[in-house]
Amino acid sequence: MNYKMISYILGWILVFAAAFMTVPMITAIIYGEATFFHFLGTAIVCLIIGRLLTFKKRKNTNLYAREGFIIVALSWIVLSLCGTMPMWLSGAIPSFVDALFETVSGFTTTGASILNDVEAMPKCILMWRSFTHWIGGMGVLVFIMAFLPLSGGNNLHIMKAESPGPVVGKLVPKIKTTAFILYAIYFALTVLEFIFLLFGGMSVFDAVNTAFATAGTGGFGFLNSSMASFSPYIKIVITVFMILFSINFGSYYLILIGKLKEAITVEVKAFLFIVVAAITIITINISSMYANAGDALLDSSFTVASLISTTGFGVADFNQWPELSRTLLVLISFIGACAGSTGGGFKVSRLVILFKGIKKELNTLIHPRQVKKIKMDSHTVDSETIRSVNVYLITYVVIFVVSIVLISFENHDMITNFTSVAATFNNIGPGLEMVGPTQNFAFFSDFSKIVFIFDMLIGRLELFPMLLLFKPSVWKK
Amino acid sequence: MNYKMISYILGWILVFAAAFMTVPMITAIIYGEATFFHFLGTAIVCLIIGRLLTFKKRKNTNLYAREGFIIVALSWIVLSLCGTMPMWLSGAIPSFVDALFETVSGFTTTGASILNDVEAMPKCILMWRSFTHWIGGMGVLVFIMAFLPLSGGNNLHIMKAESPGPVVGKLVPKIKTTAFILYAIYFALTVLEFIFLLFGGMSVFDAVNTAFATAGTGGFGFLNSSMASFSPYIKIVITVFMILFSINFGSYYLILIGKLKEAITVEVKAFLFIVVAAITIITINISSMYANAGDALLDSSFTVASLISTTGFGVADFNQWPELSRTLLVLISFIGACAGSTGGGFKVSRLVILFKGIKKELNTLIHPRQVKKIKMDSHTVDSETIRSVNVYLITYVVIFVVSIVLISFENHDMITNFTSVAATFNNIGPGLEMVGPTQNFAFFSDFSKIVFIFDMLIGRLELFPMLLLFKPSVWKK
Repeated sequence: MNYKMISYILGWILVFAAAFMTVPMITAIIYGEATFFHFLGTAIVCLIIGRLLTFKKRKNTNLYAREGFIIVALSWIVLSLCGTMPMWLSGAIPSFVDALFETVSGFTTTGASILNDVEAMPKCILMWRSFTHWIGGMGVLVFIMAFLPLSGGNNLHIMKAESPGPVVGKLVPKIKTTAFILYAIYFALTVLEFIFLLFGGMSVFDAVNTAFATAGTGGFGFLNSSMASFSPYIKIVITVFMILFSINFGSYYLILIGKLKEAITVEVKAFLFIVVAAITIITINISSMYANAGDALLDSSFTVASLISTTGFGVADFNQWPELSRTLLVLISFIGACAGSTGGGFKVSRLVILFKGIKKELNTLIHPRQVKKIKMDSHTVDSETIRSVNVYLITYVVIFVVSIVLISFENHDMITNFTSVAATFNNIGPGLEMVGPTQNFAFFSDFSKIVFIFDMLIGRLELFPMLLLFKPSVWKK
Repeated sequence: MNYKMISYILGWILVFAAAFMTVPMITAIIYGEATFFHFLGTAIVCLIIGRLLTFKKRKNTNLYAREGFIIVALSWIVLSLCGTMPMWLSGAIPSFVDALFETVSGFTTTGASILNDVEAMPKCILMWRSFTHWIGGMGVLVFIMAFLPLSGGNNLHIMKAESPGPVVGKLVPKIKTTAFILYAIYFALTVLEFIFLLFGGMSVFDAVNTAFATAGTGGFGFLNSSMASFSPYIKIVITVFMILFSINFGSYYLILIGKLKEAITVEVKAFLFIVVAAITIITINISSMYANAGDALLDSSFTVASLISTTGFGVADFNQWPELSRTLLVLISFIGACAGSTGGGFKVSRLVILFKGIKKELNTLIHPRQVKKIKMDSHTVDSETIRSVNVYLITYVVIFVVSIVLISFENHDMITNFTSVAATFNNIGPGLEMVGPTQNFAFFSDFSKIVFIFDMLIGRLELFPMLLLFKPSVWKK
């Protein structure tokens, strides 16, 4: 284990954490808020420790797979702790566990909140919450790699561990360039949404917050009614961008370099098919609750986009919708977005591989000696990937079940327990019943909140980096 | 596809179905019930068609894997249809779908009922329901193989397709002898329970019914209160036998031939550990609802044994228990019994293999070049088995989710939908809320009942035989 290199990178995380806090600090200055000083204080401490750790360049920059996982897991924990400090120290969120929950919910782009009254928060805290979504969406280490000369070591391991999806490829031969391209696309799309929102009459503050939270597929609102009070135009813009941010960023790169045909992958097709099917069924299912079909279509499209992208913005209380719609919404929130996007959940490409695996198994049963390969987008999915996707689902189910048992100690109803775990583990935000779209997570005990914090992190980092932290043999030299 | 051999074996299924009906016919004679004639009529028709199909011995007795699956799937459908006739024709259950539901629930050892008043049924119908559990528990084709000279063809494929668990082995080199040994152990244990129940003061009719339903881990009751009205002694006897029938019958054979040490497999240890852990936690969790700890322990033990064995007998309304207990009960009913027992669910050995797979994956992540094998009971689990267990879980989840979506069209609450699918798919019987232990499945629409019928069959036959029926390429010559 290359401990020196780990502490070096963690040092850079602290430096960048300090840099990120300029965003809420500027907001605090504009609105004349005293919370400025809590951000400033935290930033200074982070900067000092960070610089001490990064002062000396490391000689041995080799990073193996296990270091990649450990660096990613620790980076997210360190970043979350830094981000918690201003909220907690300023008294905006008096409980430390609550403040940590809110910050982890931000960075992991979950968007579940413990705040009963969002509108009472200082503007700089609201901006910080939205900005954590933006940082967490594409990944903090990908960000660092785009701007930092970490050269020498094999950074692909870090990128693999932080980026969502079963196969993480490079867009271009160099990791640094790949990371830079990803962030450039991310930044451009965010700006584009911001401009569209301004056209709809949103204030600059609201538009920045909405764009950040949509881009990261986070879902923190800055109004108690989330997005319900905005115009149909604004809702349509957000719906479209929630879907855009759920698509593999590799596809956008392929479009940019003119490979349009290759951009429309099997995963993208499957994702769009699920979106259209869900919107259609749910619109029909809820139509009797609406005055006209257009309103039903608008709310159904927004909610489907919000849940499958795991953003979690709300325009309607879908907890009151018929059971079929509720069930489908829970289902698509499990499926989640495309790999290589900022969305969470199980990922459509994993689902496609699983279905192909079932088909292959049925074939093997009737023709035991026939050897067939699983293909996707005209190249073969190697058996390692298939096995790892299988194990992924299994691990997913196990962690899910254990979490539900732990939450059930609180004796709430089973739907609340089930969907609260789903909402945090899949990084969605809202669930059903007591954690429905008009509710929040404030009423849970600290113990349950810690379980949720763990679930949010393990969900965002796709299980294994966090799990490896608990494996003693990882820590051996 | 060897269609001639398939029709030959289906013919034997009909002959045996007729033979099985002598049990309710004798009951009808004893109690002077007119339903006798409906059983007799059905038996005669089955016998005639059956003898016509089996009149000529088949020359080509070769059976390949796919024929094994298809024979098992069709046999269970044919047997269920035969068993339905007396109940439906006699008017005891006026609706055909209801009668089919009840029969499939019997043969698949589910024990979910559509009867609001069990005690109003003729005795011979009650006996038939219990007897279907006994036949379905060990498997009708295993029964036929034990007594019929099907020689020549490779019957292992049939046994593999009908017997539960990831790996189906022969106890002795000959299939026929293996099948015979299994049924001998099954019969002996059933008789043993019958005797223990008689000692507790049960009537012969009640004891036979209880023994049949416990042995098959079925769970049909003959009283509206299920087992709640019986003495603690009776409850303890049933608890012990529910656990005994959940253990791999291979272990009993190993005990009989003196290989005591080999009988206590990893699976048996894991199963007993789960049982003890669940009983302990639930007893503590429900103790405040009981006058003394003994009563709490009795009800908790019975309920845990009933659900993990997927029997489904009830002594307490666990739907009213605290959420932790409810969640754990749902969880263990998913886990289910050991492979090679009469119990349903996912099977403990599959769970063990999955956990070892996760451990291996974590190892592979940190040491990508290390090749490690998964071992169980000191022999290596081959990669084919691991892959097929993985695919099993995935298929299981997919069918489960699709079923829940289909049931949610009825607009009942999500817990009812979830646990009704779990109760039928895992062949348990009761669920929670509207399908709780004091409720039944009568209120569902015919559409939902057909979904449940499919789930019960697909659950009992462990997914693939039923799924292959729908694969066109299977039916090619």
